[in-house]
Amino acid sequence: MDIPITVGAKELLDLVSDDLAAMELEFSRESHSDVGVITEIGEYLRAGGGKRIRPRLLLLAAKALANGAGVSSSAVRLASVVEIIHTATLVHDDIIDEADTRRGRVAANVRWGNSKCVLAGDWLYMQAFKVAVQERNFRVLDVLIDMTQQMVAGELLQMELIGRCVGVHEYLDLIFRKTACLFSVCMRLGAIISNATPEQEDGLANYGFNLGMAFQIVDDVLDLTASEEVLGKPVASDLREGKVTLAVIAALDQCTPQERRKIETVLRERGFRSVTQAEVLETLNRYDAVTTAMARAAEYASAANQSLQGLPDSEVKQVLLTMPEFVLARNF
Amino acid sequence: MDIPITVGAKELLDLVSDDLAAMELEFSRESHSDVGVITEIGEYLRAGGGKRIRPRLLLLAAKALANGAGVSSSAVRLASVVEIIHTATLVHDDIIDEADTRRGRVAANVRWGNSKCVLAGDWLYMQAFKVAVQERNFRVLDVLIDMTQQMVAGELLQMELIGRCVGVHEYLDLIFRKTACLFSVCMRLGAIISNATPEQEDGLANYGFNLGMAFQIVDDVLDLTASEEVLGKPVASDLREGKVTLAVIAALDQCTPQERRKIETVLRERGFRSVTQAEVLETLNRYDAVTTAMARAAEYASAANQSLQGLPDSEVKQVLLTMPEFVLARNF
Repeated sequence: MDIPITVGAKELLDLVSDDLAAMELEFSRESHSDVGVITEIGEYLRAGGGKRIRPRLLLLAAKALANGAGVSSSAVRLASVVEIIHTATLVHDDIIDEADTRRGRVAANVRWGNSKCVLAGDWLYMQAFKVAVQERNFRVLDVLIDMTQQMVAGELLQMELIGRCVGVHEYLDLIFRKTACLFSVCMRLGAIISNATPEQEDGLANYGFNLGMAFQIVDDVLDLTASEEVLGKPVASDLREGKVTLAVIAALDQCTPQERRKIETVLRERGFRSVTQAEVLETLNRYDAVTTAMARAAEYASAANQSLQGLPDSEVKQVLLTMPEFVLARNF
Repeated sequence: MDIPITVGAKELLDLVSDDLAAMELEFSRESHSDVGVITEIGEYLRAGGGKRIRPRLLLLAAKALANGAGVSSSAVRLASVVEIIHTATLVHDDIIDEADTRRGRVAANVRWGNSKCVLAGDWLYMQAFKVAVQERNFRVLDVLIDMTQQMVAGELLQMELIGRCVGVHEYLDLIFRKTACLFSVCMRLGAIISNATPEQEDGLANYGFNLGMAFQIVDDVLDLTASEEVLGKPVASDLREGKVTLAVIAALDQCTPQERRKIETVLRERGFRSVTQAEVLETLNRYDAVTTAMARAAEYASAANQSLQGLPDSEVKQVLLTMPEFVLARNF
């Protein structure tokens, strides 16, 4: 079989586009309730779009093991389950962060109020599990429930850590819970329902974990380096919210006590009041903090690809091997 | 076997007290997380007490089918599951109702803030399902997930109906979702894990449904008739919150347009401003509205007992047959 070594962005998006369309239909069907406001909020959230990275990963994992056949209806169903869970976490996160916008539109909590959105989030969680139970597969449920709990606990942990100079270990634990855990579970679920061997399953799950870690590190770096136009929010929003990310940790590890005090001041004041944004970015530059963070992301990206060693060659594998590169290179 | 016809309150409480203590231990074990604040909130909620009616019902249902033997560890485990789910709904409800107190203590949302309590509620839901999945019984999961979704949808429905003169049908649907659904599921789960026949399972579930309907109707009547000291909140709080309950519906069905307008005014103004509390209570008295509501509760209570016809005689059955009476007679 003649497989091109690299795959372009288009192929990356196209390979599971039919399955993704089916997932979208399933998601839409599943956000309907006999209580009107639930359907309204559910449909609003679904229609808000998003990159659908998580269902995409699940479908790719399933396809990687399908031996050229199409993915099963189980894969499509579980792809909608992970996107519904992701959506439920976003609704509750937006309440917590008092978000005004999400994906370029008015956030649901602004439009319907916090109370209805707490309940709409709860309903979506239950709906996701209701669909998942239909698979009649206990391992699928074990994995999904454990993951959801990790994500919720991660969000609580993040609240506990706000304003503090967290260490590398705490940061990595946090981004695992926030992002990498779900990425990993998407790949694992795609493997489980394709009757993967334990080695294949762990390989794909490791890929998802490492890709997720790289993805979140890059996301956090972009918060410091991208423009306000690209971000759709002020530069260094994380610092303004009292959140320390990997580049900042890298600088804190090397900087002078005076420089550390300035960063601590920003965290404490939740914004650039006594200390300017330029001062902090200068400190980060002085210690090549962004480079250090990106190097760490590159390590995870490389580990992601190594996780796929046991997977037979295929077009899907090539797409998977290309994704970490995209994650590192993205600037939006 | 010589079984007394009526059972006192003490027997009612004692029959499953050991199992309930085991449930309490299980609940305590299950509210521990490696994220400290989760354990803190979980333990606070658990220690707040409550009548534990729901786990009690589940344990009684299991015991009714145990042929004199003790209830299984599965029953104890699921008893803690239903109480954890009930607790999770209370945490989220308190956020929505902006409650100041719960069970005579500062409400969790006041102590920890809404954000942490949204997440603590989410975590508790997941923990309940994590424990439930350990039973490796799909029917148990189907029943639990469907019920939780009904409860959440019911809470949303209630928000939609606030301030409106709802009809009997809407009211009954609402109290089914809020209360009777969980009561029914507790009985059904106790039956399922005791390998009940379909008839026994439906009989016990119907008992729970009818008991729950009676319980909630009485609860809503007490809101109008009990004293502020007993209620721990102002009399007619439901009306002050724009909520119409069965006695009010009974009055609305018979009263003059002028009297109706007064009730509508209270609902619209969310309190007794242009219209006094005495005026509304007088209208209710004029049409024997409380008596009508209590008669409906009595019908449900009687239907509860009829549901147990197929159940073999036992001490547990006697306790179950006595509970509807207690529900009707309670004044606290």
